[in-house]
Amino acid sequence: MNLQQTRPCIGIDDMALYVPNLYLDIETLAQVRNLPYAKLNKGLGLQQMAIPDAHEDAATMSANAIMQLIDRNQLDPKCIGRIYLGTESALDGAKPTATYALEMLQQKYGAIYGPDCFKHCDVVDLTFACVGGVDALHNTLDWVGANTTRIGIVVCADNAKYELKSGGEYTQGAGAVAMLVKHQPRLLAIGPHWGVATKGVHDFFKPQRSYTKKQLIEELLTLTNSTMNADEVLKKLQDMPHTNGILTTPDENVVLHKDTPIFDGQFSNQCYQDRIFDAYQHFKQQAGAHAHIDKWSRIVCHLPYAYHAKRVFSKIWLHHKQSTGQWEALAQSNNLIQPQAIDYSSTMAFEKAERQFFRAITKTPDYKNFVQEKLEKAQRASSLVGNMYAAAIFLGLMSTLQADFDDGAAIAGTSFGFFGYGSGSKSKVFEATVQAQWKTVVQHFNTFTTLAQRRGISYEQYIALHTKSQKQSLETPVKGFALQEIGTIGVQEGARYYTSN
Amino acid sequence: MNLQQTRPCIGIDDMALYVPNLYLDIETLAQVRNLPYAKLNKGLGLQQMAIPDAHEDAATMSANAIMQLIDRNQLDPKCIGRIYLGTESALDGAKPTATYALEMLQQKYGAIYGPDCFKHCDVVDLTFACVGGVDALHNTLDWVGANTTRIGIVVCADNAKYELKSGGEYTQGAGAVAMLVKHQPRLLAIGPHWGVATKGVHDFFKPQRSYTKKQLIEELLTLTNSTMNADEVLKKLQDMPHTNGILTTPDENVVLHKDTPIFDGQFSNQCYQDRIFDAYQHFKQQAGAHAHIDKWSRIVCHLPYAYHAKRVFSKIWLHHKQSTGQWEALAQSNNLIQPQAIDYSSTMAFEKAERQFFRAITKTPDYKNFVQEKLEKAQRASSLVGNMYAAAIFLGLMSTLQADFDDGAAIAGTSFGFFGYGSGSKSKVFEATVQAQWKTVVQHFNTFTTLAQRRGISYEQYIALHTKSQKQSLETPVKGFALQEIGTIGVQEGARYYTSN
Repeated sequence: MNLQQTRPCIGIDDMALYVPNLYLDIETLAQVRNLPYAKLNKGLGLQQMAIPDAHEDAATMSANAIMQLIDRNQLDPKCIGRIYLGTESALDGAKPTATYALEMLQQKYGAIYGPDCFKHCDVVDLTFACVGGVDALHNTLDWVGANTTRIGIVVCADNAKYELKSGGEYTQGAGAVAMLVKHQPRLLAIGPHWGVATKGVHDFFKPQRSYTKKQLIEELLTLTNSTMNADEVLKKLQDMPHTNGILTTPDENVVLHKDTPIFDGQFSNQCYQDRIFDAYQHFKQQAGAHAHIDKWSRIVCHLPYAYHAKRVFSKIWLHHKQSTGQWEALAQSNNLIQPQAIDYSSTMAFEKAERQFFRAITKTPDYKNFVQEKLEKAQRASSLVGNMYAAAIFLGLMSTLQADFDDGAAIAGTSFGFFGYGSGSKSKVFEATVQAQWKTVVQHFNTFTTLAQRRGISYEQYIALHTKSQKQSLETPVKGFALQEIGTIGVQEGARYYTSN
Repeated sequence: MNLQQTRPCIGIDDMALYVPNLYLDIETLAQVRNLPYAKLNKGLGLQQMAIPDAHEDAATMSANAIMQLIDRNQLDPKCIGRIYLGTESALDGAKPTATYALEMLQQKYGAIYGPDCFKHCDVVDLTFACVGGVDALHNTLDWVGANTTRIGIVVCADNAKYELKSGGEYTQGAGAVAMLVKHQPRLLAIGPHWGVATKGVHDFFKPQRSYTKKQLIEELLTLTNSTMNADEVLKKLQDMPHTNGILTTPDENVVLHKDTPIFDGQFSNQCYQDRIFDAYQHFKQQAGAHAHIDKWSRIVCHLPYAYHAKRVFSKIWLHHKQSTGQWEALAQSNNLIQPQAIDYSSTMAFEKAERQFFRAITKTPDYKNFVQEKLEKAQRASSLVGNMYAAAIFLGLMSTLQADFDDGAAIAGTSFGFFGYGSGSKSKVFEATVQAQWKTVVQHFNTFTTLAQRRGISYEQYIALHTKSQKQSLETPVKGFALQEIGTIGVQEGARYYTSN
């Protein structure tokens, strides 16, 4: 039994995007890596990827996005009940990255609203790969929904960084999206139904990288002219007093932290396709027969790269066409035959045939029309930014709304469908209705004009930032927040200090 | 305006504790470290600290606690809408530790309830040091509250590990508490008011530990008989092809992950005292004048060590006595004079005098009675387990309920006050009412009898587990979940595989 008196009208009142001011052109990367640019550009939809400057991290990007919301809406921080952060780029294992954003905001707004203006603001980090921001939104809606006076901010921020020369390198990106969540939102009212599908898998993850000290010593010995072997060095190490160094600790292993993931691209595509399918079925069970993809004017998905959703959405589309009796005619006119497991001698051969079948669907005029109408506008900003992990689905939303605003599209009163995905893995599906005042909000987005003003960097500058040999910022931040220093000694080791402008 | 039709009666229906079966006696540690045992035992309330076996981590401990809830309540996993985990011992930067617990539970219960029995279960990690579990509870209550059919599980799990010989070593502990959250709970109905106080500080945190490769090479060279210096080795390294090793990467730095925190104990005590004070004031603003510490039959706080709360609660107690007109007489009969900043030449001298004053309060008969009545029962399990980080406050709750059950105390209908704290920092204050059926639930806890059955280990065994030189489990797990293997190669690097019994 639903206990809410009248279903409250809650949702997203305003949104703000922060993307680093630096980007690398995908064409530049393609040239150096000897990759066919057309495959990246026409095949995956990639144009530019956002690269954080030396002073940027998930905390500064969060604070910069939230600042826009506060300034544009003249929010008194004392009225913001919570700031929930979805990220998989946490800067600390215990202290939430949201507290770092809060410290910066307190620095800036303390002068106007008082030294305690964020004193009662509830902040926390939610972590589930790229779907943690959707979780932050889901929970903040529940909290806001219980009382009309509540206002919350949800922010998603990530640095989607991959190993140099890895298969994920050209999908990199970075940035943050902040959302103002309240009653009677001007932008989107979010419905009460949430489809969820979860399965524990290892498609993409960021494990602790554990090495024995012997491995590390062997690696070093190949670089020196020492006549000792690794066991002799290890023996000597064991007899030394313990200090707070890397090797002279009592621990058996050296455990590395890396910002970059371990991933299996093709497996992850499959997980994404299966999870969004299952979450969509779960959503429909709750929302009723009238809730389906035809009803939504736009569909906004998590986009690890711009054209990902249109490549994998075919499974849901097929199922919808089948369940609404439209499939037979479509299959006939397009010569499509769905493979049946029984026709194949091995699971692998069947899976390959299935992938080919789903790809064939994406080439049909009907599917292309579906993509053009419902998915395409979300892709545009992704092409210019790259992956934003937790924020990617909300960048897709801003991209869609901006494109509809620019086109003068009549979307007020129509519904959007949302498909979040986080590796590991989970999908969440929900829907929202565009509010009558949506244009008064979107007119301030300036999504594409802001992205057009960024500065392209050279391959050498990209490498310097990626490897962190670039210590000085390429651009001195004039407005907003910046990492100033990381402590090195005693109780300040690893503590992060930020400036506010 | 509150939008709920009637305030729903929601809260904690059942609880389950999982603590590793191994512990180190504090007396053993005190002897080896040459610390006065009386100070640790009588001063801090320490007796034993739980030590995870080689096969245990935050995921196995979570799954083991949840298993108890599922078995005891014969829960069909398909009815569990969410499992929210509060932890600061995450095993991965992107894939939530909750998914690892889910995989184990699916392994076990799939045989009974089907291969998809957790398919629609929403899981995620919430991170805010020791208060992340309270955040998981807070959000799950909001979610459950909106619909009478919803059932959620909140689990808190941590390995509270400190550097050997550090000031935190003797406060270590580990374990998990799982809670069943639903309508018409048999145990505790949780009230709608939540006091929150937040301030970005560095009292305790787990930063990424960044070292230059030169630092690492210098450390290694002191161990070898190489005639090269660090710069020569570095130069040679830069000319080598990049591999997936530790040194032969393109990165400027080597970043270490450590399970152990950087902390400033005295500063953290101050942060804890100030945050719980501020959160309590915020709670009272919402709950009204009738809500105060005298009203609560028991007070349950986050306990980094058993006697911590009774040491720092004096600030709230003082303020309560002052605001209710009881202070003057108390101060007079105990010769207590509150220091005024104006009387001291330096802030430090004032702060010292203030600490002494608050400590003097804790020696008064009135305060001691207050502690004995309201705080003491929560301490008992903490003395036997040590710090559990996110789960510590809930261990305190189980300890209190068990002790009241054992004493035959008439607590049904009375209210408990809760003071969560997470470094970094945030406090949350809330209250709950003990339900009429509480004894039918607590009779299954067996908190102290279970703890009494654990196995003490030697100092040498403790060191072997702490440094991870102990690869084999000291005790083969007969029932429950265990880490079996961590992948090392390719897309399995760092992937964790578990067994279920």
